[in-house]
Amino acid sequence: MKGLNPIEFVAAIKAIIDGRIDIPQRLAGNQALGVLLNRRSVRDFSSREIEADVLAAILEAGRLAPSTVNLQTWSFCTFDSGSWKKTFGANIPFKASRAVIVLGDAHRMRLVIDEFPFKPLVEYTLAVMNASIAAYAMNIAAEACGASAVMLSETGRTGFYDAKYLKEKLRLPDGVFPLMTLVFGYPKGRKPPMPPKLPLREIVFDGAYGVPDQKVLEAWLKQMMAGYRATRVISSFKGQLRRYLAKVDSAENGLKEMIFHRKEELRDRGKKRERIS
Amino acid sequence: MKGLNPIEFVAAIKAIIDGRIDIPQRLAGNQALGVLLNRRSVRDFSSREIEADVLAAILEAGRLAPSTVNLQTWSFCTFDSGSWKKTFGANIPFKASRAVIVLGDAHRMRLVIDEFPFKPLVEYTLAVMNASIAAYAMNIAAEACGASAVMLSETGRTGFYDAKYLKEKLRLPDGVFPLMTLVFGYPKGRKPPMPPKLPLREIVFDGAYGVPDQKVLEAWLKQMMAGYRATRVISSFKGQLRRYLAKVDSAENGLKEMIFHRKEELRDRGKKRERIS
Repeated sequence: MKGLNPIEFVAAIKAIIDGRIDIPQRLAGNQALGVLLNRRSVRDFSSREIEADVLAAILEAGRLAPSTVNLQTWSFCTFDSGSWKKTFGANIPFKASRAVIVLGDAHRMRLVIDEFPFKPLVEYTLAVMNASIAAYAMNIAAEACGASAVMLSETGRTGFYDAKYLKEKLRLPDGVFPLMTLVFGYPKGRKPPMPPKLPLREIVFDGAYGVPDQKVLEAWLKQMMAGYRATRVISSFKGQLRRYLAKVDSAENGLKEMIFHRKEELRDRGKKRERIS
Repeated sequence: MKGLNPIEFVAAIKAIIDGRIDIPQRLAGNQALGVLLNRRSVRDFSSREIEADVLAAILEAGRLAPSTVNLQTWSFCTFDSGSWKKTFGANIPFKASRAVIVLGDAHRMRLVIDEFPFKPLVEYTLAVMNASIAAYAMNIAAEACGASAVMLSETGRTGFYDAKYLKEKLRLPDGVFPLMTLVFGYPKGRKPPMPPKLPLREIVFDGAYGVPDQKVLEAWLKQMMAGYRATRVISSFKGQLRRYLAKVDSAENGLKEMIFHRKEELRDRGKKRERIS
């Protein structure tokens, strides 16, 4: 990955600005669509606290999210600034007012439905997929209430990159997978601009997978680097990737252990019990 | 899993009706929150087609969804009824007007960022998490436009339960993981009622994981059985689980192959190339 020269930097910034949201004209006044498309990952919060009723609406959106066969394979660990500090010895990332650690939960349903055989990849996929959906529902609910959030997978050991660490910290039983932390607050000043998104023709295919356009991808990469340089003083896109790569070995090993090395008792449960008849 | 007697059936139906959405009073008129909380999985569509601009808004919501380091690890395969029939030899499930197969895509970013070492579980988690979020964004966008959708993981071989089959059908490169199919249309008549959801106290924990309440879980299970019996003529909750269990072995093996057995060339790529410096 090469750096940008000044001409490339200016061209990339212009491309970011040109690549904004495309809402069809007839739908331009649609409030719910506006909330959805104008969501941003906010990392700079004012001192205003998240009100109790806004937090209730956020959690309700997570609770009512859709899931495979309505199995609700998620749990939410909630924190205010005090309980976060007590648990992790630091402020909530970005000094947000509230935090929710979102867990994929394949443990709870086993307490009443004992027919599931131990199929670790199926269970893990189910848990991650459903919990991700619930997390995003909470994020959009916050936006609907004028608050904001950011989803963290790595920052401050708050997501699946530190799954094993979080499993111990939160005393999670086998089959519960830490996925990400959502931190909530009210944005301080204007929300950040949208990061550069790939054009629709690069991600949407008609009927079968198409070959991605290398030039479009390279232009996007330049925009990512330029965008980081323009908006962040101490961080860069390369730096961000480097932080992830530094932890990728331990992340992989932690996931492997959590997904596959579950207790024998659980693993054999499906075989011992009566099957659905 | 035991069946329900008539008294249990009536009690469970009453509990479903009592367990509806809980929107805080001050937020009751919030349109965006209403769209989010009133979303339903719709499986009965009218003949009205999804208009081009509504489809555009749906795809735009997927395109602009948040993702880890903005890597946009997803692709969307779109179908109308004709192209679906050509590919799969059947109607779109539930005779919906449009379908989008949502793919977790860890392939595309490798075409321009070659520093990623082969860490299959990290990549898979990233791809599934982000693609799930994008899928739900498309679902909510449809709801915002008055249309509806249902996310399918198994019905008609349309999700991760048939990942290997779909990989061949859609000619997916290694590192692209079929996750689910969203089918879109306008609901025929009233939307279905909300399926029974666990109460907040069963899924939300303060600071550390709590022990789920077995009685609450058992009551929920009864509601699931009663809800299926009350709303579906030919299906039951047990029947639905049975369909999943019948395919769980092949699903597990398919996922294992897709996640771990990728091409050597790709696997070793991160080692050969220059690392981020």
